[in-house]
Amino acid sequence: MVEQVDHIGIAVRSLEDAIVIWRDVLGLELLGTEVVESQKVHVAMFRAGESRIELLQSTDPEGPIGRFVESKGEGIHHVALRVDDIAAALESAKEAGARLLNPEPVPGAHGAQVAFIHPASTGRVLVELCQPGVVH
Amino acid sequence: MVEQVDHIGIAVRSLEDAIVIWRDVLGLELLGTEVVESQKVHVAMFRAGESRIELLQSTDPEGPIGRFVESKGEGIHHVALRVDDIAAALESAKEAGARLLNPEPVPGAHGAQVAFIHPASTGRVLVELCQPGVVH
Repeated sequence: MVEQVDHIGIAVRSLEDAIVIWRDVLGLELLGTEVVESQKVHVAMFRAGESRIELLQSTDPEGPIGRFVESKGEGIHHVALRVDDIAAALESAKEAGARLLNPEPVPGAHGAQVAFIHPASTGRVLVELCQPGVVH
Repeated sequence: MVEQVDHIGIAVRSLEDAIVIWRDVLGLELLGTEVVESQKVHVAMFRAGESRIELLQSTDPEGPIGRFVESKGEGIHHVALRVDDIAAALESAKEAGARLLNPEPVPGAHGAQVAFIHPASTGRVLVELCQPGVVH
């Protein structure tokens, strides 16, 4: 079951410039920045209620965000929906005919399990499903 | 101050087909559908925690969603951020140098006041600010 919008991922060319927009123009609270080596991105996270806005600057032109910005330019890259049971959500999506980019969950940040659905199955919206890690 | 993601607006060609995706493939709860004459759209609303996913099918090729789908195809159209004081939020965005599509708030659905910021000022993301109407 989808519990909430976990985050909205936005591809940017310059994290520094984009932080000015989301913090100073729009007034969101910057939670922090981190480098996610596996995704080849430098991320800035902002709080928006129970959700986050995540700005993604590529650290490698051949990474997923690097290729996205090269072909489509800056803009919204994906929407992440938080689910309570990612294995069940993937099974249900597959049974409904969706094409999965990750047929099995893969490790995300902070112990989460994540999986992407192919945008051809979701009206050209790249959807990430994520189940948060257990908080100790 | 931004309180939460109010909704994510997604442009679709067929509301019927898109409802199948978001309800049956992704498992979100369909809250209802409505026609918003002023925006020339037929809307389907889904609950995602405190936020909503709004699917937008144009009722007129010359409307904003009709033109968007014609030029860019289906996909995410805008992100709406709920603010507690839209006049203050617009003033603050303007002072920070943003170009406003609506310099003053305009009436939205259910008594809300809404305003769009030009995507040239927000890294190619169309941002809607909205302040909900008073619930009676």
